[in-house]
Amino acid sequence: MADKIRVAIAGYGNLGRGVEAALAQNPDMQLVGVFSRREPSSVALLDGKVPVYAMADIEQYQNDVDVMILCGGSKADLPEHGPYLAQFFNTVDSFDTHAKVNEYHAALDEPARKAGKLALMSVGWDPGLFSLNRLFGETILPQGETYTFWGKGLSQGHSDAVRRVEGVKKGVQYTLPSQDAIARVRNGEQPELTTREKHVRECFIVLEDGADEDTVRNSIVTMPDYFEPFDTTVNFIDEATFAAEHSAMPHGGFVIRSGDTGTQSKQSIEYSLALGSNPEFTASVLVAYTRAVHKMAQAGETGARSVFDVAPGLLSPKTPAQLRKDLL
Amino acid sequence: MADKIRVAIAGYGNLGRGVEAALAQNPDMQLVGVFSRREPSSVALLDGKVPVYAMADIEQYQNDVDVMILCGGSKADLPEHGPYLAQFFNTVDSFDTHAKVNEYHAALDEPARKAGKLALMSVGWDPGLFSLNRLFGETILPQGETYTFWGKGLSQGHSDAVRRVEGVKKGVQYTLPSQDAIARVRNGEQPELTTREKHVRECFIVLEDGADEDTVRNSIVTMPDYFEPFDTTVNFIDEATFAAEHSAMPHGGFVIRSGDTGTQSKQSIEYSLALGSNPEFTASVLVAYTRAVHKMAQAGETGARSVFDVAPGLLSPKTPAQLRKDLL
Ligand SMILES: NC(=O)c1ccc[n+]([C@@H]2O[C@H](COP(=O)([O-])OP(=O)(O)OC[C@H]3O[C@@H](n4cnc5c(N)ncnc54)[C@H](OP(=O)(O)O)[C@@H]3O)[C@@H](O)[C@H]2O)c1
Ligand SMILES: NC(=O)c1ccc[n+]([C@@H]2O[C@H](COP(=O)([O-])OP(=O)(O)OC[C@H]3O[C@@H](n4cnc5c(N)ncnc54)[C@H](OP(=O)(O)O)[C@@H]3O)[C@@H](O)[C@H]2O)c1
Repeated sequence: MADKIRVAIAGYGNLGRGVEAALAQNPDMQLVGVFSRREPSSVALLDGKVPVYAMADIEQYQNDVDVMILCGGSKADLPEHGPYLAQFFNTVDSFDTHAKVNEYHAALDEPARKAGKLALMSVGWDPGLFSLNRLFGETILPQGETYTFWGKGLSQGHSDAVRRVEGVKKGVQYTLPSQDAIARVRNGEQPELTTREKHVRECFIVLEDGADEDTVRNSIVTMPDYFEPFDTTVNFIDEATFAAEHSAMPHGGFVIRSGDTGTQSKQSIEYSLALGSNPEFTASVLVAYTRAVHKMAQAGETGARSVFDVAPGLLSPKTPAQLRKDLL
Repeated sequence: MADKIRVAIAGYGNLGRGVEAALAQNPDMQLVGVFSRREPSSVALLDGKVPVYAMADIEQYQNDVDVMILCGGSKADLPEHGPYLAQFFNTVDSFDTHAKVNEYHAALDEPARKAGKLALMSVGWDPGLFSLNRLFGETILPQGETYTFWGKGLSQGHSDAVRRVEGVKKGVQYTLPSQDAIARVRNGEQPELTTREKHVRECFIVLEDGADEDTVRNSIVTMPDYFEPFDTTVNFIDEATFAAEHSAMPHGGFVIRSGDTGTQSKQSIEYSLALGSNPEFTASVLVAYTRAVHKMAQAGETGARSVFDVAPGLLSPKTPAQLRKDLL
């Protein structure tokens, strides 16, 4: 193995931990350190031999890191970390605020260009792999409709809402694609569907002692915006079942392009993910794209990029000839 | 609309006709002509206003065509047409002889480089989109297994074999993925499966007058190599049903990557195509990649390429900012 790609992690939550685990599956990369805003000694990594540094000292490590993987939250952390760190490092992040992608792109592009660095944004599954599939769908079948369904997935915001209901001791909420809606799309009907029509909600609840099932169910299913407009199912379970079956972070979904070609032939492209762990999968996507960032930066590319700008072959450690032989 | 991309077709069979139809769905491209080895007046296009030229004269049109789409057969036509036409045109083709991809790549690369042209090979769904998904699968989930299933699809070679059986008047054969095998893969078992274990075969037969069902069925299911090793079903139908239900060229299949991340989370990526018309869909992929070839050639790229080398954003007529806004 030639020199390994030297990778560091900025921010160590679910995603950061997932990146540490994913790097261990990629022998051409090496985790050289984790940066955190918390007191470094309070941050426990999976691998105790990897150093944790203070985020405040990060500029000092410019020459020790080939690619910095940004694992802060999209809402408050990345808008600040992204443009700041692009001055010093080639970066990759999973920024997922769809409404602000161009604003964020501009904020990364300038510092990265000035510093001669490359900043790859919005890598993961949505945005990320789902975005790519929306792109392939509409370019290959220009006459058609694209459908994105999410789930089965744990929804953080809706789980929080459920837990605020009186009588709820523990609770989680999963969003599921509506099987009816998927069947209509697969059937080639190209229906018009709102996000609400495409999804149903399912809650698993542990009640407080003495709380009443019907009262709690009613409070949940009538909650405006969160549950009232959706087809919502509420299941009551005991604490042991809750601990055993509802502590993972599954997610996934579908991107379906349904289109017509030539002589009105029906054509359908379907991409789906069933993820046992959302942060570990997102992290695995980030790590594969880290390899691409390293190669593109070495080739002299600078500025902000998205997954649309990355040739897929760059994700692989294999040579182009090996890739063609094995996978074409 | 700025200047349209000037596209021509070399070879006008099923795929060529599909390309003509696909170009009509893409207003930024224009079909400037079709080249055929047959007498031009004998080749009837969908659009009678597009000129048909003799393949022998093709060199004369070097300055009139931005991208030439090669629609000859992979076995006998492309190994000759590809390297020859790469001397004069930027090209895109659907070469699908998996065992010879590097040989073909080398044969394209030299003339294309010398002439300052770009030659994109093996574009379609397999090779093509399926290849990309095999690549994404193994790079994102390095610890896992990839499964390619084909079908439901019309198989030309097996249909020919069925039609040679005595007593068969008309016949077609479809290859279908084994539902058992797919279920095991989706279940995360990561089984070892041969191509035979992954597929079943289904025939639809119109008998000659007086032929016997059992005799014909037996001749088919015991045919060595073709059917004997597979789970094969034979259905007998009348001629009207045959004409109504078995004259299209459907195909499709699945690429599934089943993997494990971090703390043994099961992760699954599934890509599937259900194609009403195989040649029309393949043609639609070729046309989207034609746009990419034009942009890459304009940017000065020369030599042979595969889908692994093409940044997905190049497939779209939209600007990068628009793509991010609409699809990221
Ligand atoms: N594109 C996609 O498909 C996709 C999918 C999933 C997630 N995402 C994005 O990934 C982002 C990060 O997700 P996440 O699940 O990793 O969020 P998280 O666990 O909340 O971590 C976010 C940050 O919070 C800090 N933190 C973590 N644990 C902490 C603790 N115990 N006490 C105090 N601070 C702590 C960490 O920074 P410090 O180490 O500096 O304290 C960490 O970087 C999300 O905001 C989302 O936008 C994208
Ligand atoms: N990558 C993928 O996913 C994928 C999928 C499907 C197919 N393919 C490839 O596409 C290739 C072409 O498929 P196809 O279905 O278009 O093959 P086809 O219909 O047999 O056409 C092949 C060539 O035969 C000639 N031809 C067509 N009709 C003719 C006729 N009536 N009489 C005499 N010659 C005729 C045409 O050349 P002239 O006009 O010069 O005579 C045409 O270019 C296949 O070999 C396959 O390798 C790839």
